[in-house]
Amino acid sequence: MSVNSGVSSDLLQHFLDAASRGDSKKVTMMLKHRPELLNQRGERGWGALMLAARNGQLETAQILLKHRCDTSVMNSSGQTARDVALFWGHTHISRLLSSSEVPALSYKPIQECEVYFNRPVLDRMSQKRSDSTWISKKLTSPGSVFLLFDHLSPLVRSAESEEGQVHVCKLRSAAVQEIMENHQQKLLIFLGVQRHRESSLMKDHEDDDDDALIAWFAIGIEEDCEGFLKTQDPGCFFLQQAMPGLLRMSDEDAGQELRITRLLSKGSRDAGVVAQARSVLAWHSRYQFCPTCGSKTKVEDSGYKRTCLKAACSSLQGIHNTSYPRVDPVVIMLVLHPDGNQCLLGRKKVFPPGMFSCLAGFVEPGESIEAAVRREVQEESSVQVPDGTLITSSLFILILATYILSINLVLQVGAVQYLCSQVWPMPSCLMIGCICVAMTMEINPDQDEIEEARWFTRQQVIEALVKDKRAVFSTPPNQTVAHQLIKHWIGFNSNL
Amino acid sequence: MSVNSGVSSDLLQHFLDAASRGDSKKVTMMLKHRPELLNQRGERGWGALMLAARNGQLETAQILLKHRCDTSVMNSSGQTARDVALFWGHTHISRLLSSSEVPALSYKPIQECEVYFNRPVLDRMSQKRSDSTWISKKLTSPGSVFLLFDHLSPLVRSAESEEGQVHVCKLRSAAVQEIMENHQQKLLIFLGVQRHRESSLMKDHEDDDDDALIAWFAIGIEEDCEGFLKTQDPGCFFLQQAMPGLLRMSDEDAGQELRITRLLSKGSRDAGVVAQARSVLAWHSRYQFCPTCGSKTKVEDSGYKRTCLKAACSSLQGIHNTSYPRVDPVVIMLVLHPDGNQCLLGRKKVFPPGMFSCLAGFVEPGESIEAAVRREVQEESSVQVPDGTLITSSLFILILATYILSINLVLQVGAVQYLCSQVWPMPSCLMIGCICVAMTMEINPDQDEIEEARWFTRQQVIEALVKDKRAVFSTPPNQTVAHQLIKHWIGFNSNL
Ligand SMILES: [Zn+2]
Ligand SMILES: [Zn+2]
Repeated sequence: MSVNSGVSSDLLQHFLDAASRGDSKKVTMMLKHRPELLNQRGERGWGALMLAARNGQLETAQILLKHRCDTSVMNSSGQTARDVALFWGHTHISRLLSSSEVPALSYKPIQECEVYFNRPVLDRMSQKRSDSTWISKKLTSPGSVFLLFDHLSPLVRSAESEEGQVHVCKLRSAAVQEIMENHQQKLLIFLGVQRHRESSLMKDHEDDDDDALIAWFAIGIEEDCEGFLKTQDPGCFFLQQAMPGLLRMSDEDAGQELRITRLLSKGSRDAGVVAQARSVLAWHSRYQFCPTCGSKTKVEDSGYKRTCLKAACSSLQGIHNTSYPRVDPVVIMLVLHPDGNQCLLGRKKVFPPGMFSCLAGFVEPGESIEAAVRREVQEESSVQVPDGTLITSSLFILILATYILSINLVLQVGAVQYLCSQVWPMPSCLMIGCICVAMTMEINPDQDEIEEARWFTRQQVIEALVKDKRAVFSTPPNQTVAHQLIKHWIGFNSNL
Repeated sequence: MSVNSGVSSDLLQHFLDAASRGDSKKVTMMLKHRPELLNQRGERGWGALMLAARNGQLETAQILLKHRCDTSVMNSSGQTARDVALFWGHTHISRLLSSSEVPALSYKPIQECEVYFNRPVLDRMSQKRSDSTWISKKLTSPGSVFLLFDHLSPLVRSAESEEGQVHVCKLRSAAVQEIMENHQQKLLIFLGVQRHRESSLMKDHEDDDDDALIAWFAIGIEEDCEGFLKTQDPGCFFLQQAMPGLLRMSDEDAGQELRITRLLSKGSRDAGVVAQARSVLAWHSRYQFCPTCGSKTKVEDSGYKRTCLKAACSSLQGIHNTSYPRVDPVVIMLVLHPDGNQCLLGRKKVFPPGMFSCLAGFVEPGESIEAAVRREVQEESSVQVPDGTLITSSLFILILATYILSINLVLQVGAVQYLCSQVWPMPSCLMIGCICVAMTMEINPDQDEIEEARWFTRQQVIEALVKDKRAVFSTPPNQTVAHQLIKHWIGFNSNL
């Protein structure tokens, strides 16, 4: 046993024992009083870092590294601490010791077509939004399609062939004539024209054929429309509960359409177009006044702009985001255990019984996607999560309370990898799905909070995905990006 | 020559010749009149698709596919059209024929640490924002750090050692006492506490040590502060031009700090913290009134929330994004030529002479990241780009006019891959950097627009990056994500 620096062999042995069994507090305390212990080595040249590595004591290894422990020294067998960690299969420690850079993950990206709400149905043709002549012509064109929303709820009817599913009602000009004439408070949004993959290839041909383009519009009303409903198919109704109602949209002609658009997406066409319409309408319902001066605003660009009516308002000088629809970026991440074989899921009391989901939260100003992922997982206490009693009173809260989970943990995150994004129209979020690796394992959910978070093994996750009767939890529905992230980690490609 | 279906051999030969030389118009026209030509084959069993594939005629191949051309037939040598495309090196066509799914790209992600503005300096400790006792204590604590902004311009001084660089002034409580007492209109933002990597590992220890945490704040003023400036170092000034001023921030103690935070980022610490502060302050400057009802609002949560003062306002029912800072997601993408060896860059007249950059645009409601990339590149005419004369009048416009480029093209995009994100505090954007592959090559910038777009070869891009005297264009500065995307495509890792 090599003893020097005035450190007694007893003291050194106490220190090395503490490192071996992962007693981080004792290691910290001893280093505070006797910093010279850090690189001392005991029997067969084994130092504290090697012993921590041998026994998989990640936290202790991190503390030793923080104190600038020498990682290059070898024991009498010629092994560095990293060699020891690799040999004994403690990949989280060998990863920590292998490089000063955060290592990259290498998951395959998620196929866009697997994500609900994402299917781009229409060519938005944004250049037409300010062309009032063209828009007027299309508004009265018998071929145009109109979707009707009452307080952001789309007009739908039950799907005949699929239990619980709905089809969005696609009304023609004649059907909405009464509403167009009698509802003063309506909002009109130009959604785009039906997509033809060939349109951009045969430009000349298309120009001649403008009449053949089928324009789609959304109409938003917030007043009585019983008169209108009486003239419609009695099976039509406004889909009241956005969540989970909006997850039940399917296409009437899915089989036929799928062949044509298979390059773009397998998702529901109804869901894609309703997501677009509802996001824009929700913006109008909350942003009727100029946030810069408090004045009233007028709608322009076929529903894609609101301009302040006060001539002196500074929002009219240049271009400002106050005039344009808001999209809120949200990070949602599957956190992997350092051993790679467990993932962290959490639940809130308002979730359906037994359901656990991925952590998520809003990107804050001045944060990259990766920084937002780290903060949401890492910070001691995160954005205040609304009380369960508020759920029905707000659109915005639905995503927080239902399938978004912001939770109080103290986990260090290493690598972060983007996997997919998802449109989430409650009211207008861009979900950014990531997978990341924790560098610590201990979960400390705040006692005052209502959440619960647990590590689940791969086996437990598979049982949940296949809805095995032994499953100890359930996942969110497959229309959610949380479900896709979990499924992707497991490596399932089938349509669970 | 096999002739059937009543098609004369002359007509067939005309059709096959048109496909060979890529005369898309003629192919389209002939198929319109004689659809039976589609799968007819001429000498040695070669059909139109094989001939288009042989000669790299992508557009013609796409038109034939659109007409449901049979891709499985073989010529008399046993080659399908895809075999022909592969043999002759037309990878864009073989890719088109290889699968009905959009193929994935497989670039490595960009190291976070290479991206300016991204360095997370502070632990935001969001749970402390509503703890007014704790905040008050920190506001008067002598160790606290204050950044001062006048009309969103940070107080800085010139860096002594680096030409053109500035350091952000980090003021102590005593220095800002006069401003705290005399400026009624000031905004106070809690930015977070200085990050200690060990803090979450030694939780117990940290709690005892709350006094040792150094809190950072931003103060925003929009009125005269000459009195204050006279009491300061005469070298201090407010950094007036956000662009490119904000790209010139460097750290005084970079060398010393770098060792400690090398796991997190190599970027400028000043840039990271200024990005956070400026984004939040910019939100306050534009969102002083409740957009739902037009009433005044009050600031809460240490600058992270504005609450409507009208008791009956619906924004007070539940949680709504109207009360929280806005972050605008923007996609910025390097578009690759189908041959993989050229990239598409564009310029606007307001760019510095010779500079070309990546295309970019705001994510719209109801769009995934990938859909936004496709739309921005694909749509015939994109969001209206502001007139050059407006540049100095708006913050928001700066990103559009300076390094963001939205351009009128008609390009089909196939695979899209996320590479990195960047904080962009003008005023509060989340730049989402992607690389994507075009499936068509012809650029049709709108004649009425001021932009120019061109394909550049790998050689030309390398010359621009190394600032070779033969370079035919220049790239945006290396603090931009556009620069990082271009450099990453070339495969350069050095700090150009
Ligand atoms: Zn205004
Ligand atoms: Zn209000």
